[in-house]
Amino acid sequence: MSEVYELLSRIKARKPLVHHITNWVTIYDCANITRAIGALPVMAHAIEESADMVSIASALVLNIGTLTPQLIESMIHAGKAANRQDIPIVLDAVGAGATKLRTDSAHRIMEEVKIDIIKGNSGEIGTLLGVEAEVRGVESMGVKGDPIEIAKTLAREKEATVVTTGKQDIVSNGTDTYLIDNGHEMMGSIVGTGCMAASIIGCFAAVESDHAFASAAALVCFGVAGELAAKSDKSKGPGTYKEQFYDEIYHLDEEKVKKLEKFEKV
Amino acid sequence: MSEVYELLSRIKARKPLVHHITNWVTIYDCANITRAIGALPVMAHAIEESADMVSIASALVLNIGTLTPQLIESMIHAGKAANRQDIPIVLDAVGAGATKLRTDSAHRIMEEVKIDIIKGNSGEIGTLLGVEAEVRGVESMGVKGDPIEIAKTLAREKEATVVTTGKQDIVSNGTDTYLIDNGHEMMGSIVGTGCMAASIIGCFAAVESDHAFASAAALVCFGVAGELAAKSDKSKGPGTYKEQFYDEIYHLDEEKVKKLEKFEKV
Amino acid sequence: MSEVYELLSRIKARKPLVHHITNWVTIYDCANITRAIGALPVMAHAIEESADMVSIASALVLNIGTLTPQLIESMIHAGKAANRQDIPIVLDAVGAGATKLRTDSAHRIMEEVKIDIIKGNSGEIGTLLGVEAEVRGVESMGVKGDPIEIAKTLAREKEATVVTTGKQDIVSNGTDTYLIDNGHEMMGSIVGTGCMAASIIGCFAAVESDHAFASAAALVCFGVAGELAAKSDKSKGPGTYKEQFYDEIYHLDEEKVKKLEKFEKV
Repeated sequence: MSEVYELLSRIKARKPLVHHITNWVTIYDCANITRAIGALPVMAHAIEESADMVSIASALVLNIGTLTPQLIESMIHAGKAANRQDIPIVLDAVGAGATKLRTDSAHRIMEEVKIDIIKGNSGEIGTLLGVEAEVRGVESMGVKGDPIEIAKTLAREKEATVVTTGKQDIVSNGTDTYLIDNGHEMMGSIVGTGCMAASIIGCFAAVESDHAFASAAALVCFGVAGELAAKSDKSKGPGTYKEQFYDEIYHLDEEKVKKLEKFEKV
Repeated sequence: MSEVYELLSRIKARKPLVHHITNWVTIYDCANITRAIGALPVMAHAIEESADMVSIASALVLNIGTLTPQLIESMIHAGKAANRQDIPIVLDAVGAGATKLRTDSAHRIMEEVKIDIIKGNSGEIGTLLGVEAEVRGVESMGVKGDPIEIAKTLAREKEATVVTTGKQDIVSNGTDTYLIDNGHEMMGSIVGTGCMAASIIGCFAAVESDHAFASAAALVCFGVAGELAAKSDKSKGPGTYKEQFYDEIYHLDEEKVKKLEKFEKV
Repeated sequence: MSEVYELLSRIKARKPLVHHITNWVTIYDCANITRAIGALPVMAHAIEESADMVSIASALVLNIGTLTPQLIESMIHAGKAANRQDIPIVLDAVGAGATKLRTDSAHRIMEEVKIDIIKGNSGEIGTLLGVEAEVRGVESMGVKGDPIEIAKTLAREKEATVVTTGKQDIVSNGTDTYLIDNGHEMMGSIVGTGCMAASIIGCFAAVESDHAFASAAALVCFGVAGELAAKSDKSKGPGTYKEQFYDEIYHLDEEKVKKLEKFEKV
């Protein structure tokens, strides 16, 4: 069996609960993609319940896309509870580098909580390591240096898995590094694919403790669905493409994954 | 004329304003499904305006899917205003049983406000009655006891209509009990159908004071649209299914409802 | 080249960042339509970063659809920062006239911030001028007086461009007045087209300082896409129509705009 598909089949069998504290733009898509791949999403951001909710979950996804100081407190509170129970945490550092609040909040979360998987585009990940990078809103405008080395270095520094998304996705825990070449440019034509990728990584981390491989497998599956959706003659633009993408995520099977997976460990 | 369709035709003719204080995950779908069936949605959660807004509305839908203490205050404030003006209120007890905050908040709303229609899955409704039940995030994992008896008992205790959604939906006001067998399993493949059902119940309660029959009729129409969408050869997965579902809700007519309605009063 | 298309081609070439402080119902659609037309959306509502974010943006869209007092403060804070840097601001006065909070907040924003483009339906715009108008939730139920004269008068009073949407859209800066006859009734079958129109106006204002013409061009493009989506044999109801609409916005080109644009300067 494809090793990637083996993880996907665990998600479908176990239906892990994936708790999100996320942004108000893509919150629906984060929930819906989690459901589409076979897991159970829950969203609960009040500090009065965020730790309770994470205690029944199998993974926690934190996304700072529309952060406020109160939301950051709730993320840290839930994150500490997750740490106590060894529940894996994904941090999607949306917009780090674009404003001081985002950069500072991402750093503060990483200081107060042990994050298992740090995800961002090259500008965001570069910002977190402290190298020169430009983030325009939530888009990377580039980074100074080799993104693979930056991911590795940040992974070692934070003792975490680092995921840098882009045309080629990079996953590194400092020792194992994966390069993923699945995906399609149409994925960039709709808002929210980055946030959805973080949710899917959360689903895979919920069923596999090798977080580097879990993240790589998640991005392979996500990218394969993106390619299949683009190939469909029903996809004519971002509206129809998105619906095809959901259908393809839902119908991923071993044959499709095995035939299309394109990644290497370097 | 089908009695169910008669209520639907009233919604289309009167276009009642349905005010929501709801969650951030499915808020768009709650608004859009309300529009698709022919009513006018409005969403206003600030305590500074929630009572003002409800005073021009024909129904109020409260949904605790991403509750905070402030949001609960605003719900109670709007609910008391609705009570003063005899505007029907639907409470969707999303996630009651999953965390203390949700269970306590649902109870508190029911104590401070006269709720007309209490809606949940079997785990949520069981939790509200105080029987053994498991809710994982927002999914029911089961309840101890007969769901029909539980609905009846809670309805009598709260002097309200109780709606328990599931493969077979149950509606009871303690005296009249309806079992609804419309619907399709694909409805569970997308996030938000539960919340949308509450909005549709709000639309029907806005035009019919027999809230048990209004709720049953709402679930019949919702389920019929779900079946028609599943039958469409355009539905290939959760992405395309959802669009077909919206189209079918919009195009429900007497012939379709009469032919497919499947419910009984027991 | 069509003058309207010329502005659209600037958006595609420059990909301006359009910052939104908007509502929780249609926030995703505001972001996604901004992306679909070729610009970059960002949503950041915390007062701790809203001014920072606007400083790297080319336009600011304020939408009071689910306002709270805190959100209004953040809008004013970001608006003042935008004023200092001559970044154009669009205010979508969603629901002004329906509650005191909305009417007062719209007025307060206009007093404390120099708004470049004030947008609403005829009931909302009438409310802002102080004429008799009815707004039910977020729908205009009519206004007393000639909407064109109302738009002109408000434009002169506020030294702004006023956009009144409806079957025929009106744009006036007090001197130049445009009437736009593009659009299709199916656009009203889905929630969020009004909010999306404000986002599209923000994209056009980001690349053209004649805000009256920019707004007219935005509404022409938006309406042309709405017409093309309605003509598609894939559009069968609000679900499928919406996907076609996104596809058409994405694929607008000079030929389509030139052939279908329908507006006049009066």
